[in-house]
Amino acid sequence: MVRWEPGTPERLQRAALELFATRGYEETTAAEIAQAVGLTERTFFRHFKDKREALFHGQDLLEKAFLEGVAAAPEQASPLEMVSAALRAVSSSFPDERRSLSRTRQDVIDRNPALQERERHKLASLAATIAEALRARGVGEPAATLAAQSGITVFGVAFLRWIDEERPLDAIMQDVLGELRTVLR
Amino acid sequence: MVRWEPGTPERLQRAALELFATRGYEETTAAEIAQAVGLTERTFFRHFKDKREALFHGQDLLEKAFLEGVAAAPEQASPLEMVSAALRAVSSSFPDERRSLSRTRQDVIDRNPALQERERHKLASLAATIAEALRARGVGEPAATLAAQSGITVFGVAFLRWIDEERPLDAIMQDVLGELRTVLR
Repeated sequence: MVRWEPGTPERLQRAALELFATRGYEETTAAEIAQAVGLTERTFFRHFKDKREALFHGQDLLEKAFLEGVAAAPEQASPLEMVSAALRAVSSSFPDERRSLSRTRQDVIDRNPALQERERHKLASLAATIAEALRARGVGEPAATLAAQSGITVFGVAFLRWIDEERPLDAIMQDVLGELRTVLR
Repeated sequence: MVRWEPGTPERLQRAALELFATRGYEETTAAEIAQAVGLTERTFFRHFKDKREALFHGQDLLEKAFLEGVAAAPEQASPLEMVSAALRAVSSSFPDERRSLSRTRQDVIDRNPALQERERHKLASLAATIAEALRARGVGEPAATLAAQSGITVFGVAFLRWIDEERPLDAIMQDVLGELRTVLR
């Protein structure tokens, strides 16, 4: 059984983001990322399959937060209320201290079409997982898929605002959800 | 009645889909696809960059239909009405005769995670293009992005129903749009 020093993936991720942002994603190697935090390339590959995964570290936690939010919604909650609860749960994963790191990450992704494709895929998978959780709570189709997709749409739009604004993510998400409801009225 | 003779790219696409579905996507080569319709591999590559593109042939037409629908919406249309017009325009690209081909294509994509990733990326790009068209018609943000994303959500859900149902795509899309509005009420 191998024991990890706590926080190693996070340190590697931070170093990766800084190098990707300053030198470029393509130009940065796993060895350089590891070296930047005094670790070996081998250690890097113990945590991440490849350098791309260093960018997507934390997605499991995001999924977990969404699912916990759905699970914690009251018994009689509507699909929209379940999704709204999930968005609220997710916002606690994005405290203001994380904004600068998230912005750096987004800049790296925006500059690389392959990473954009990956990011979109991850969000689409997340929507599918949330829809499954809604169905498990008795929501039928297509309501489950529509509510889940709407939640991801709101998250995506609100997240891009959050990295440029000083307001908490939760407040922005509730605003964007309100605007989505207005658009569809 | 005039019989419509499909052009070379359409014939190659049909052959590609049939081979992907029967032999598997990975196992089929461009040369085999070309051979199936009596053409050379060189001809295949004159029409498609690679075999994957044979699956995504027609996406430009889909985008064109969406944009024409947005452009054709009445002057005072709301963002939702513009998206609804775009969905109506798109449905004419999916006559009932195309259902069986669309179903075969979907089966191929469902069995291959890399193709799913590509498909999601294409839909996300389409949403971005529609949002741009809405902004060009004076819709502000985030309404433009939210309306465009909702349109793509409706299209995606309705399309998967259409390949399994006997009803026209337009009717299914209007139903799904109605259900999305109910979910968000």
